[in-house]
Amino acid sequence: MGRVTERRKVIRVRDGAVSARPDTLVAEEPLEIRLNGKPLAITMRTPGDDFALAAGFLVSEGVLAEQDDLQNIVYCAGATVDGSNTYNVVDVRTTPGVRIPDITLERNVYTTSSCGLCGKASLDAVRTTARWPIADTPPVRVTPELLADLPDRLRASQRVFDRTGGLHAAALFTEDGELVDVREDVGRHNAVDKLVGRALQNGDLPLSRSVLLVSGRASFELAQKAVMAGIPVLAAVSAPSSLAVDLAAETGLTLVGFLRGSSMNVYAGEDRVALRAAAAQG
Amino acid sequence: MGRVTERRKVIRVRDGAVSARPDTLVAEEPLEIRLNGKPLAITMRTPGDDFALAAGFLVSEGVLAEQDDLQNIVYCAGATVDGSNTYNVVDVRTTPGVRIPDITLERNVYTTSSCGLCGKASLDAVRTTARWPIADTPPVRVTPELLADLPDRLRASQRVFDRTGGLHAAALFTEDGELVDVREDVGRHNAVDKLVGRALQNGDLPLSRSVLLVSGRASFELAQKAVMAGIPVLAAVSAPSSLAVDLAAETGLTLVGFLRGSSMNVYAGEDRVALRAAAAQG
Repeated sequence: MGRVTERRKVIRVRDGAVSARPDTLVAEEPLEIRLNGKPLAITMRTPGDDFALAAGFLVSEGVLAEQDDLQNIVYCAGATVDGSNTYNVVDVRTTPGVRIPDITLERNVYTTSSCGLCGKASLDAVRTTARWPIADTPPVRVTPELLADLPDRLRASQRVFDRTGGLHAAALFTEDGELVDVREDVGRHNAVDKLVGRALQNGDLPLSRSVLLVSGRASFELAQKAVMAGIPVLAAVSAPSSLAVDLAAETGLTLVGFLRGSSMNVYAGEDRVALRAAAAQG
Repeated sequence: MGRVTERRKVIRVRDGAVSARPDTLVAEEPLEIRLNGKPLAITMRTPGDDFALAAGFLVSEGVLAEQDDLQNIVYCAGATVDGSNTYNVVDVRTTPGVRIPDITLERNVYTTSSCGLCGKASLDAVRTTARWPIADTPPVRVTPELLADLPDRLRASQRVFDRTGGLHAAALFTEDGELVDVREDVGRHNAVDKLVGRALQNGDLPLSRSVLLVSGRASFELAQKAVMAGIPVLAAVSAPSSLAVDLAAETGLTLVGFLRGSSMNVYAGEDRVALRAAAAQG
């Protein structure tokens, strides 16, 4: 790909001194995801790992759940500008027989015509479409000390962030704290989709022994992506939203927020975190 | 509304000590935006200022450009759960005669059937739909010192962030650095849409003498929102993407990034920033 970063001229102001120099920026381009030839969604993403991004996106949407559901992914040959492929349109072909759910893909929220839209509808939609119920996963258990180490391990492997400061990161760890994979993207959802999609391509779904770490906040949609991939533990460096906590509580996902230094907050699924006896007081 | 924050139980781990207590989280719920009765988009947002959010979203999409374009906005009466309105579905009615552009609302990217999708297509779409060309705005000029003060002023007025740590913020300032309005939301785009929508409702578009400050990164879509509202200066606390810089350069938007302490980077439109003579060396 070679388009993960791009150079632009910048004028720097530092304590009153002004200088002009080239700067490295994170690349951002649109990616259109087609499903069996039909346009489905467009996301602004950092180029690279586009097939994994498309596959992971479709895991979150309940279209793909395992390697066999995926027939192949191609860059659309006709998507050209001045005769050159833009590599910004991918088509995901599902294996014949895979049922395509009736999904409204605006911001990953499923709507039902019969009910007013509410947080509960969003929760129900995830619960009813999840193919890998978290509650059925093996008994993963992590210590606070292990969780506390993860952000440093993530940062150590964030190569592009060091150069641009402009990327969100997501990483998969084993339950023993070993880094399995890390992805960076200008969009926070995309980084997780790339991780999950790569896992699907490798036949590794459900990720039932994994810990997912995200560099920012834990929104509903990030919690949704963890649940849809069967990931039992989601840890975020920043705050979760109310709906993310509600989804975690309903599905059995362990949700950790404000993971900084040796401190953290556990919002749901605390049975997977080896806390001391004092926790029982609450 | 009263749903900006919600309380949930949390287990806190601090240097090995474990305690259970209630915690304040930022609220997140889906909002469906309808245009003249037709479902258009769903966004996950922090409840409150929903009409402004819907109006601002439609400014970004090129549907609304001034107060007279908007007939009214209502919560859909039929959008109920158990007989109660969810207040999560709004319908925006445009004034008869307002032309509705043919838009694909997936992630705010306009697609054309004739060309492969590329960054240039995204840039062209904004340029051709913008009703308030930045180049036509009055000669706004700000000093680096004024810009450097803005993040502190924003933080001083971020009320919900203090309690939850979970919000993105956006603020409008006058060219003299006076705070005009600030909005917080779990979604970064929503905070800007709420600012712009409120300005449209007040008859204040184009915002041709305003500076927009965002608490995070400057993506293409945030730059797009500034351009569509006629805002000449966009400043971000973190990094911009390549496509945001390209859009700024094409439209004449002044784009400032990494605004921290007395330091900042000017990526485009530097004629509006009163830099010293040294700048000319670049």
